[in-house]
This record gives sequence, structure tokens and C-alpha cells, in this order.
Amino acid sequence: MIVVLKPLCSQTTIERLTRRIEELGMKPHIIIGVERTVIAATGPEREGMQAELEADQEVERVMPILAPYKIASRETRRDPTVITVGSLTIGGGTIGVIAGPCSVEGEESIIEIAKIVKAAGATALRGGAFKPRTSPYAFQGMKEKGLEFLAAAREVTGLAIVTEVMTPHHVELVAKYSDVLQIGARNMQNYHLLQAVGETRKPVLLKRGPSATIEEFLLAAEYILDQGNQQVILCERGIRTFETHTRFTLPLATVPYLREKTHLPIVVDPSHGTGVASLVPSMSAASVACGADGLILEVHQNPAKAVSDGAQTLNPAQFEATIATCRKVAGALGKTM
Amino acid sequence: MIVVLKPLCSQTTIERLTRRIEELGMKPHIIIGVERTVIAATGPEREGMQAELEADQEVERVMPILAPYKIASRETRRDPTVITVGSLTIGGGTIGVIAGPCSVEGEESIIEIAKIVKAAGATALRGGAFKPRTSPYAFQGMKEKGLEFLAAAREVTGLAIVTEVMTPHHVELVAKYSDVLQIGARNMQNYHLLQAVGETRKPVLLKRGPSATIEEFLLAAEYILDQGNQQVILCERGIRTFETHTRFTLPLATVPYLREKTHLPIVVDPSHGTGVASLVPSMSAASVACGADGLILEVHQNPAKAVSDGAQTLNPAQFEATIATCRKVAGALGKTM
Amino acid sequence: MIVVLKPLCSQTTIERLTRRIEELGMKPHIIIGVERTVIAATGPEREGMQAELEADQEVERVMPILAPYKIASRETRRDPTVITVGSLTIGGGTIGVIAGPCSVEGEESIIEIAKIVKAAGATALRGGAFKPRTSPYAFQGMKEKGLEFLAAAREVTGLAIVTEVMTPHHVELVAKYSDVLQIGARNMQNYHLLQAVGETRKPVLLKRGPSATIEEFLLAAEYILDQGNQQVILCERGIRTFETHTRFTLPLATVPYLREKTHLPIVVDPSHGTGVASLVPSMSAASVACGADGLILEVHQNPAKAVSDGAQTLNPAQFEATIATCRKVAGALGKTM
Amino acid sequence: MIVVLKPLCSQTTIERLTRRIEELGMKPHIIIGVERTVIAATGPEREGMQAELEADQEVERVMPILAPYKIASRETRRDPTVITVGSLTIGGGTIGVIAGPCSVEGEESIIEIAKIVKAAGATALRGGAFKPRTSPYAFQGMKEKGLEFLAAAREVTGLAIVTEVMTPHHVELVAKYSDVLQIGARNMQNYHLLQAVGETRKPVLLKRGPSATIEEFLLAAEYILDQGNQQVILCERGIRTFETHTRFTLPLATVPYLREKTHLPIVVDPSHGTGVASLVPSMSAASVACGADGLILEVHQNPAKAVSDGAQTLNPAQFEATIATCRKVAGALGKTM
Repeated sequence: MIVVLKPLCSQTTIERLTRRIEELGMKPHIIIGVERTVIAATGPEREGMQAELEADQEVERVMPILAPYKIASRETRRDPTVITVGSLTIGGGTIGVIAGPCSVEGEESIIEIAKIVKAAGATALRGGAFKPRTSPYAFQGMKEKGLEFLAAAREVTGLAIVTEVMTPHHVELVAKYSDVLQIGARNMQNYHLLQAVGETRKPVLLKRGPSATIEEFLLAAEYILDQGNQQVILCERGIRTFETHTRFTLPLATVPYLREKTHLPIVVDPSHGTGVASLVPSMSAASVACGADGLILEVHQNPAKAVSDGAQTLNPAQFEATIATCRKVAGALGKTM
Repeated sequence: MIVVLKPLCSQTTIERLTRRIEELGMKPHIIIGVERTVIAATGPEREGMQAELEADQEVERVMPILAPYKIASRETRRDPTVITVGSLTIGGGTIGVIAGPCSVEGEESIIEIAKIVKAAGATALRGGAFKPRTSPYAFQGMKEKGLEFLAAAREVTGLAIVTEVMTPHHVELVAKYSDVLQIGARNMQNYHLLQAVGETRKPVLLKRGPSATIEEFLLAAEYILDQGNQQVILCERGIRTFETHTRFTLPLATVPYLREKTHLPIVVDPSHGTGVASLVPSMSAASVACGADGLILEVHQNPAKAVSDGAQTLNPAQFEATIATCRKVAGALGKTM
Repeated sequence: MIVVLKPLCSQTTIERLTRRIEELGMKPHIIIGVERTVIAATGPEREGMQAELEADQEVERVMPILAPYKIASRETRRDPTVITVGSLTIGGGTIGVIAGPCSVEGEESIIEIAKIVKAAGATALRGGAFKPRTSPYAFQGMKEKGLEFLAAAREVTGLAIVTEVMTPHHVELVAKYSDVLQIGARNMQNYHLLQAVGETRKPVLLKRGPSATIEEFLLAAEYILDQGNQQVILCERGIRTFETHTRFTLPLATVPYLREKTHLPIVVDPSHGTGVASLVPSMSAASVACGADGLILEVHQNPAKAVSDGAQTLNPAQFEATIATCRKVAGALGKTM
Repeated sequence: MIVVLKPLCSQTTIERLTRRIEELGMKPHIIIGVERTVIAATGPEREGMQAELEADQEVERVMPILAPYKIASRETRRDPTVITVGSLTIGGGTIGVIAGPCSVEGEESIIEIAKIVKAAGATALRGGAFKPRTSPYAFQGMKEKGLEFLAAAREVTGLAIVTEVMTPHHVELVAKYSDVLQIGARNMQNYHLLQAVGETRKPVLLKRGPSATIEEFLLAAEYILDQGNQQVILCERGIRTFETHTRFTLPLATVPYLREKTHLPIVVDPSHGTGVASLVPSMSAASVACGADGLILEVHQNPAKAVSDGAQTLNPAQFEATIATCRKVAGALGKTM
């Protein structure tokens, strides 16, 4: 931790801060510069230390040196984490394809779309049974009935199921039917929910919140990991910026950046990341090209009739073409898809 | 709803979309322009219609006309909502002052700070018992013990209590001790939690999420209102932008803008909105000047020793000076504080 | 143009606005809805009309229907514009590779790096002679000397030259030496400069400003096109967002989005778009995968000794590997690179 | 400058970097921590050093300690700069009020509005003669004719003139008529223009670019100051964020923050900062409350007929009421307006 003092600070101030750093369990190194005095504090940086030192009236700025996440860090574990559950493998050179409708709309329709996406190359089925919706007046999902239909679709197709859980007291229920528990972007910092899925032994697909920094994203993963659940899949799904021609801005550089910082696998959601179906094929190819371990895509028999998110949903033909292109890119890079 | 068709669309397309708009319960009005055909659809705009029409391949864009929130809207209720609970009044020309530490740290200390802020002009006491923290390794609050200490501070000072609730199954517990239930910025779209506090009859202080649009913010309020709880206080606490010299960017224009759109009272949190104690006094005065119905401020006996958020916390002398200035501004504008 | 009136507006207001729309040369269509009256105005939308109508106290909102750019629009010209100048072709399935140092540092060094990048697959040489720098105390470029060295490098290698021009009175000078005139991101809305390069017949590489919307970007191109210069290359180089782990956020969805809206070719600058050399190879591959017509990359013999932008600059080996990967991706998609 | 090395770096690396820091004219201090080695480099931090060290493959991060602006810094000059030119004083407890239309539209009309704003309390007249416009098809200003009309309005009212200059070769012309040279937000990093106005001895009103950090803003001021022109007025006019209910987001915390960092006076532009006339009065009052040294406001006899920016322009009655409120706030804070 680097503590930059205000200009012209007194010897008394330096001594006081030096003592305080020692009390906090770190070792102070005083560096007297021409315009500023700086105290470098080595040793374990604990949450809260930075805030405390910054609150001091003689301190100009405090800069942490170490990343605050530990278990998620590549320094803790060099080898990439590979997650396999039923038909779905993510990581280790294999690109998983999670596809399906935004919402489960009925038994017949979810089985039909499951067959379609499987035939086109999907390795898992997505579909919302519990739906977080911006408006209280919007369709909120089929709930447990929807989970049953997803399980029926798995029965028929063998595809692993990925579905969202919204609140801690639903975790057990959703875990009964789903192979992967999805945490939505709005809930990335719903800490009780993160702890609850951390207590299960199901893989968790954690979506990045639209205004979360990478550090906050990895710390959210850390909440799950810290409960003993090591199977966390990170999902980039777009951030909120000033751009309005897409629903969110899809910042693909997070894929190689996360690769450097963490051993956890990374998937991309070009459907939410753009919000525009016609942009999804190109951005899927780009996701594969920059190293994503998987894609999660919204696909529906007839997007114009989908109960939610139709504008960003591919129809079966578009999905098939998208996967065909992505496979070519994956092949060119020596990956399996 | 305005449906803009792609250039050169056929008569068949126009007829198909016209029929679909009628099926959706709206009345279509076809407008043939030089470069584009537009269909204006009047009648009730329901969530999901926009998405459905946008998913059509011949549709370029769909623009809603009506705001999607209803109960929160000023069109539903012209008179401003005034909320009074114990010592705290917010709205109707009276500016509420909610002050106290970030976290409750002990019984003695919370009682002491309660007395201090009351003497300086606070009309309610804030303090976190359940703390949402970015890192799983940070202090997570004193939990029920903290709630008891807050109640003890109310006993001694008469100040109403404002404290955060993080998850649905804590609502009953927190409501037992607190006068106002606070929903934190990270939980603004935690819909199960919004519904749970909506089922109580306690006033709710709802913080804006750092990447929420005003429409999303009012729709989050709508989730609470829709459960029958009419006492919602909106809180602007800063948004995430590219700026780094402050923790968040405090966009005060939301205060007069919300005033035009909703009857709900609006408070500002300059502590989180800036993250820097030295900027809080000026931004508090600015909040009052632009019409805020209240302030929520972090105050601690010794910010450098606070267990959380020290860098943005005022000490008692700073708080007293801040309130003195704000009162002058309020007085100049004919308001009571 | 869709003019949404405030609720409960009078017949007099409707008539007044109807007349005003007619005076503005448009045809009004009145649509009386349940909660709002809307006037759809068809005909030529001119800049300023929206502002005028929005300034009316009875108007709630005005929504334009047509895009404000004309010559850049795909509706004006269906076929993609292909730009060829010397060794460089951009568009029509051929991916151009513009590579070289941030700044020209000397004759020998620019010739050396030109040979290196050509051998690895570059089809044009970049290098700054006039350098816009955030600080007045930073190196501002070798100026005309630098232009001469670039011309010398072209002499030796045959590579077309791409270099920046910063102010109108340098246009003639830079055009004397350079094959493509580059407009930097900071100057995207420097209209006198846009008009000055529009008056030449040299291709212009126009960089997107870090906070420019796509509409503003295309209108900046329109300034050049409107002067009769049809050879504009659009360059996405990253936008400013809340993210700090990269220098800018590279929003690749602009590539397929621009493709739908304009016939102009689109290149990507992953060096500035990330600011981090280790992320450049992945983002180059992603750029090719999502359909970019070209790449512009910073390469230096020894990035740690570069006079500017070292942190985002590739060394020769990294550049060679990047191009090798990109060629595989291009090949998989049926493109030439 | 703090140089953080990658984990597990060798003694050779440390020695190599230590030598390089010495060669750069700084003094290295090596700090061996548990997880990282850090080298603190004291002495003059020059532009480019950070980039060079960051480009080293063994370096994880480089954090500068000193602010890169010098002349603008409060450390260079403790006393606030007060600028007086004719009728306008900005700084030192006196709040300047610059008001007038977006564009000069004719001699009679500019004289009329000058009289109106003066009567209501303005101390300078604004009005654009050269207009930077997003679209090449929009009205670009009356040019020199407009400057003459502004001078005529000064003749009649005695108000100082503030008007924009867009390109270096117009500086002499605009300086002939205007009392203050305005640099627009789009040109904040047009360095040739900054240098050109820096060579005059006219006060310069420098608008913050919509995506400029505070450091970039002060470095742009530094370009002017470095030419010997000490009279720079900083103007906050809103930044680009994800918010769409206002044209820009007005981040007022920059006012007290700039106050801590620089001696230069700070004015706020609530017209551009919100883009919505009904929000301008509240945000003007908030600007005064948080310590602004001046306001710049768009006022027009009939905003709906203004040739540009009507939606954000006050009419005379609104302007008068705004100034009346602001004066009360200024008075409450012991300031003159």
C-alpha cells in the first residue's frame, strides 16, 4: 500500500502515520521526495486499511498494490479451471455453447427449441423460469413449472440446463432441476444470494453487472469461491456506457484481461451484450476469436413471438449460421467447438 | 408507440404489422412519409410490446410514448408525497437530515454519535447493521446486535432510525427495529427484496443503482408501490462514469428532473455521491439549492477510525458546519431545515 | 419527426403546433391517443427543427425518424466503398494492415521498423510526425523532419504512409508527404480541420472521438464527404467508460453496426482501444472476426524505449504472431489479409 | 513514481529497472514486500516516463505521484486568480453572470437581448458568431458580421463580450472584437488553438470536454498558461455518461474539487450541462451553492424561435427568476452576485 502525504507535511505527521501503519500490521518504508513524502507499507493489505488511511487529513491518496481477490487469482492457481457438467464443457480449449429462449414459455416449445439448438451445435440449454424484469408489470416467468419443463427438455435431448436463480430461498429449488445456477447481472452484488449458491456444489454462471469493475466482478466470484464452491464461470454480458445504438456495450477486452488475472473460465453473452439480433453473429465470432471459453445465446423458434427479449434473439437459421462461422474461427485457432 | 419501418417496405409488410398492432390491443395510424413509413399505435402500451415489434425484420425502430411507471408518476398524483415517521419529515418544504456512521460499531458509540448529530440538526439516525461489502473479507456488520444498538440510540435521542435490509428473509427482523427500511444501491433491482419491503407498511428509502436510468429507478420504486406501500423515498447517491477523482459522479439534475416526473420525495447522499469528505459540505449545499427534500450523510466521531467508508465521512465539526450552511441556503429558498 | 405533446394539451396548442410544422415545410398528421396527443411530421427533417419544437412549452419530446447523415448512409449508396492507395487496400474483402511506431523517432529507425512490419504483413506504415499530447510538456513530434523520414521509408519499402494532421494550416504540408491523412480522436469534431482535409483528394482515416456517438461520428465523416472527398476510412479506437483496466473500452459491435448504416470502410485500432500490449493480439483477432476492413497497430523495435505509448506497443515478434493469427481468422471467414 | 514489479521477479530485473530509473534522472528506493517488489522513484516525474516503465515486460503497473500540471496547480500559487475585464469580474467572492443567445442572429436582436440580460443582472454577454455544429448542414454562425453585432451590443450596454473561437487563424479576428475568448468543449484538446489563444493576452474561457478527466482539463489549461497567458477561466459544462434524460450529466463536485487543486476561477454552464430549460434554474442555484465563481447561461427573447439550442434556452422571465434565486443563495453564503 502506497500512502502519499500532502505537500509540506510535518515530521510529527510522518511519525504518527508510521505508527498507525505498524499498528495495522504492515511495515512502513518512508521515502522523502522533492515534492512529496510517501510511505510504502508492505505486508498483508486488508480491506478497510485503505479507507482508514485515506480518511486521515494529512494523507493525499492511498494506492493499493495487491489485488483484493485471492482464490480467483491466477497467482493462487496457475492452471485454468475446466468445468464439465453433463453435455457441457467450458474451458481447456473446448468452447461451450449455451443456447435457448430468454424465457421458458411451455413444455412443448422448450423441448422443440432444445432439439433445434442441439442439432445446430449447442452443448447446453438456457431458459429463464424465474425472470428478473425491469417493470413489475412484465411477465415474471413460469417459475417451478418452467423448471420442470427444462428438466423435461434435458430428458429428451441430454442437454445440460442453465437457468437463473434470483433469491436465496429459491436456490435449493432451482438446484434440484438445473445443472448450472445462473446469477443475473442485476444480482452480481446480491451477497446473500452469492453465498447461498456458494454453499451448493453446482457450477455457477456469474454475470458481470453492467457497471461493475473487473475487480468488483472477481470479488463477487470470490464470495462464491469463499464458500467452497470452486466451479464459477464468469460471463461478460456488456456494460452501461453512453452508447445507445446497442443495448449495452460489449467490451471484449475483458476476455483476454480476465485470462491474465484469473484461472476461472470466461463466457460471453452477445445477445444481451448488443441487444440487437443482427449484431449477434459477428460478436459471437469476435468472442471466440479473442479467447472466450463459451457463448450464451438467445434463440427462439420465432423471435417476434417471444414473450421477452425478442429484439436480441436469433431464429434457428441465424443460430445455425452463427455456430458454423464460430466453428471456423475456433478451428483456425486450434480450439474445439 | 411509434413503429418506424425499414426503407422501401412493401404494402404486405404494412398490412401485416397493422394487423399485429390491432391484435396487441392498440389502434394503428399509418403515416406514409417520403423516406419512411411510420405506424403510430395508440392505446395502452404494455411491457413486451416494444420488444416484440422490434424483433420484426421489417421494423427499424420502435419508440414508446408513455412512461412505463404508473403509480410513481406525477400524472397519477399531482400533490407531492410527504413522509413523516417519528422525528423525521421529508417533503412538503421540510428538509430531512439523516446522519450517522456508515456501520454501527457498538452501543456506546452509536448513542454518542446520535446525540452529536441530533444536537447539530439531524432529524434521523443512519447506521448499517447489515453491510453489503464488495469484498467477502471485509467487515459485514454487527447484524441483529447492531439493530438493537440503533434502537437504544432512538430510545435515548428520539431520532428515527434508517437502516439497510439486504435480503427478503431479514425484512421482518429489520422492520422490528427500524423506522425506515433502506434498500442499497446494489439491490435496486433485487426484485424479491423490493416486493418484500413493499409488503410492509414502513417507509422505504430506495437508493438509485450506479448504472440505473431514471426510468429503471422509478420502475424499481413501482415494484414497492405496486405492493401497496406508498411511502417510498428516492435517493440519488451517484452514478458510475469515467470520472475517477470522485468515487461516483453525483448528477444533481436528477433532483429537479425527478420532481417533474414523480410525486415521491427525493433525498441526496453526498457522502457516497463523492466519496471524499472535503467535497461533502459543498455538495450538501448544492443538493439543498436544487430542491432536495433531504440529505443522508455519513458522520463519525473519528472518521480515521471508522470501520468502513472513513474517507467520505464527516467529523462532528464538519457536520455541524455543513448543516449551518445548508440551513442558510434552505432559508434563502423559503424552506425549513 | 414525432412530436409528443404534454398531457391535457388544448385544441389551440394542437393547431398552433400544426401550423408551425407546416411553416417548417413538413406535413403534420395528428394522432389523438388516450393519454397523449402526438403529431407525426413527415417530409425533410432539417437540423434545428427538433430543437425548435422541443423548446415549445407544450411539447414533451421530439423524436427524429431519419438519420441526419446523408452521403455516408448506406441508403445513399448500397455498394461498399473500397479505398486503394499504393500498397494499401481497405474494403471489399481485403483487410489492410497499417503498422508502425506511435511517433517517428529518426530516419534510420523508421526505415528499419517499416521493413520489419512489411515483412510481417503490413500494407501501410503509420508514424506520428505531429503529435497531439495531453501534456504541453510531452514530446510533440519531429514535425516536417518526421514527414521526410516517413517518405524515405516509403521510398525504401513501397509502403503507403498514414500520418496525422492536427490543424488546417498543416494540411497542405502533410498531404505533400502522406498517402492517407489521419484525423485523431481529439480532433473528430474540429470542423475546420475536417473541411480542410475534405478539400484535398487524399483518403482520410477518421478516428472516432472517445465520447462520440455513432451519429456524431458519421456526421463528422459527413463534413469531409460534403466537401467532395469520398475517401473516408472510419476508425474505431475505443470509448471512454468507467472501466479502468484498459485505457479505453473497445466496443467492437460498432463494426457490424456501422456496416449496416454506412458504405464506408471500417478499421479498428486495438493499440489505443486497449492501451495494453498483451491484450492487442486477441483484440486484433476479434476485430477481424467481427468484420473489420483493416487494423492499425503500434509496433516498435523496442517498446520500452519508444518516446510515446510504449505500454500499448507490440514488439516485432508480437506483431508477427498477431498477424499470423489474424490471417488464420481472415482465411476462415473467406477474406484476404 | 511507484513501479510495481510482477510477482517472482528476479534480482537481475530489479537491478535493470533500478539502473533505468537512475538514467531517467530519478532516485530509486527498492521495497521488497511479501508478494511484490516495488520501486519508489523520487525526483522529477516527466511525461513519458510512466509509459516507458509500463512497457517493460516485468513491470505490472506504474503509478505517478505528482500531478502533471504545474502552473495551474494550487501548489504553485495559493491565492485564487481573479479575472476582471470590463463589466465582468470572476473570482474572489464575486460571481460573474455571462448570458445571451446560443447564436448571434442579427444586430437588433443581440442588442435587445443584451439590454434584457443586463437589466436582470448579467455582467457579460455571450453569443456565438462562429458555431461548431455536429452536422455540416446546420447553421454555422454569422461569422465576422456576428462579431460586429456583439461589439455593437457592448457599445450600447457596456457588457463585456464572451464568444467562441474555433480555429487558430481566427484568433486574431475574434480577439479584435471579444473581451473573453471561449474555447468550446469539442476543442478542449485542439492544441494548436490552445497555444494560439495562449499567445494573446485576452482572458480565455476554457470549456471541459465531455469525456475529459480533470487532469486532462487542467493540462489543457496548462497549454494556455504555458504560453504566458495567465487568465484562464475553467468551465464545467457536463460530461457524457449513460444518462439520457439530460443532454449531458452535470457533475458539480468538480467545482469544489477543482477549487482544491487549482487557483483558476471556475464557472458552470447549466444550459449545456442539462440541455433542458426547465432544469436550468435549479442547477444554477446549485452551482452557486457549491462555490462556482460564475454562470454562463443561454437566454433568448423567444427560445422556440432561436436558430440553435432552443430546448435549453431560458426566456427573459425565466432568466430573471433564476438570477433572483441565485442571488439569494449567493447572499446566504456571503458572496456578491
